[in-house]
Amino acid sequence: MEKNYDALVIGAGPSGITAGIYLKRAGLNFLIFEDNVPGGKVNFTYQVENYPGFDHISGGDLAFKFYQQLDFNKITLKTEKIVSVVKNNNLFVVKSNKGEYLSKTVLIASGTREKMLGVKGEKEFFGKGVSSCAVCDGNFYQNQIVAVVGGGNSAFEEALYLSMIASKVFLIHRSDNFRADRFLIDKVRNNEKIEILEYFVIKEIQGKSHVENLLIENVRTKEVRELNCQGIFTYIGSEANTEFIQDKSILDSEGYICVNNELESKIAGLFATGDVVSNKMHQIVVACGDGALAASSINRFLG
Amino acid sequence: MEKNYDALVIGAGPSGITAGIYLKRAGLNFLIFEDNVPGGKVNFTYQVENYPGFDHISGGDLAFKFYQQLDFNKITLKTEKIVSVVKNNNLFVVKSNKGEYLSKTVLIASGTREKMLGVKGEKEFFGKGVSSCAVCDGNFYQNQIVAVVGGGNSAFEEALYLSMIASKVFLIHRSDNFRADRFLIDKVRNNEKIEILEYFVIKEIQGKSHVENLLIENVRTKEVRELNCQGIFTYIGSEANTEFIQDKSILDSEGYICVNNELESKIAGLFATGDVVSNKMHQIVVACGDGALAASSINRFLG
Repeated sequence: MEKNYDALVIGAGPSGITAGIYLKRAGLNFLIFEDNVPGGKVNFTYQVENYPGFDHISGGDLAFKFYQQLDFNKITLKTEKIVSVVKNNNLFVVKSNKGEYLSKTVLIASGTREKMLGVKGEKEFFGKGVSSCAVCDGNFYQNQIVAVVGGGNSAFEEALYLSMIASKVFLIHRSDNFRADRFLIDKVRNNEKIEILEYFVIKEIQGKSHVENLLIENVRTKEVRELNCQGIFTYIGSEANTEFIQDKSILDSEGYICVNNELESKIAGLFATGDVVSNKMHQIVVACGDGALAASSINRFLG
Repeated sequence: MEKNYDALVIGAGPSGITAGIYLKRAGLNFLIFEDNVPGGKVNFTYQVENYPGFDHISGGDLAFKFYQQLDFNKITLKTEKIVSVVKNNNLFVVKSNKGEYLSKTVLIASGTREKMLGVKGEKEFFGKGVSSCAVCDGNFYQNQIVAVVGGGNSAFEEALYLSMIASKVFLIHRSDNFRADRFLIDKVRNNEKIEILEYFVIKEIQGKSHVENLLIENVRTKEVRELNCQGIFTYIGSEANTEFIQDKSILDSEGYICVNNELESKIAGLFATGDVVSNKMHQIVVACGDGALAASSINRFLG
């Protein structure tokens, strides 16, 4: 058991890192935990064009700048996976895969992960043609045919990214109602390499050692088509990383954390920020803004 | 009378500019108005060390990066001063010093200005030793004695800045309770050039053609001291720039705009973001995050 901290931040994405910068400047004694690469999902974004301060910057470069700021501010980052958070006698007991920590407050900034389709072949071919990170895996599909599933900004952005690599990109969506920005929809519609398949869902992912075919079904006509493709990238929404939270009563029905305007959950001293928060706009700059706010709330809580 | 816009954004500080980037990407038809330098108060900050993406950057440089992003995104910035905003038959009529505009929504991102002390000599010597912008005017005080008034982050940051120029800096505060971050308080306390005068208020600013003396009073002992100094920089808090809003019922008792979680005021279609919002943390990254959120709310409002 280690000493008593003012705050423990779970997650070093944009929100956790920003909170860290502010907690440090407030003179608090805290740690940040991250079991993946610092910078969070920003790492898996090809190009960021809506973060103020940079006209355009690669996700990897922006994530690295965030990471450097931890270093610049002498903030301690622990590469540990948090497995449980429990409040006990006014102190939080936070267990990781490597140790146990005590703290007056906890800030959950653990973000989200991409949802799975839940169809036959998806698990079997994950990493063998099935991916949820075009930036990580896109390069394997030079001059091949790929499919992107989803109707939001991520799906559209990554379809555009993949169109620079693949010979052909199918964008498959279950309706004709896209949540993506008009700006992106226009870009995709004007891209000769991308074909949008509306009202289609994935029924099965097929192949031998690697993805070779998709079975897709038209939700209106029930027509089933076989689509030859070597890669499938799913962007059908995200799931909150909140498995390590024991008290499920602070979560909404989807597993996201419910907080008040000060970003505090109904457990006093337990705060949440960024994409993991219920009904939050999933944007880098929004996560950063909330990180600053969470640090300020923690500072006020500690008095 | 010009054509009908989707949105008119009043103010090109961090929040208005971020909103602009997001409104543009959503394909909306809008203008941004600013009667001062784009980038808002960031321009008047010496050094920014808590904006994610930059370890440290001068306020002027960050403001210029924000401004460049308007240009990069082909966003129209009008150098006009807004004088009134009125809703009429589901449309907003926005009048500037140069014209009149109609829009379905309005986003107020007009920020704040520094409060005045309200003491004798302050107006008379404004620009002649009295300033609220160390970055703009500090350079006039090479090897001279200056005073900074206030107890928050701005006062402490600017005292540190001025200590690099002036021979001596008095930091004058009405109590010993400082709102500034501990990090900054420590830096100021360790700075040999800065002397903190606790429990003092300014009674009068004196001089001939330029500031020469301050009369300061100890609020506990009522002792009045004469302080020889050539410059006085006031950072005692801010006032909302909301004079142009006709319907004062959307303002709190301090003149800031009250909004709901979607950043909409009780006038449907009238949104506010950034420092001008009631009970908001005045930080660049918070203003940026809220700008993105406001654009998203406007997009949803327009349907």
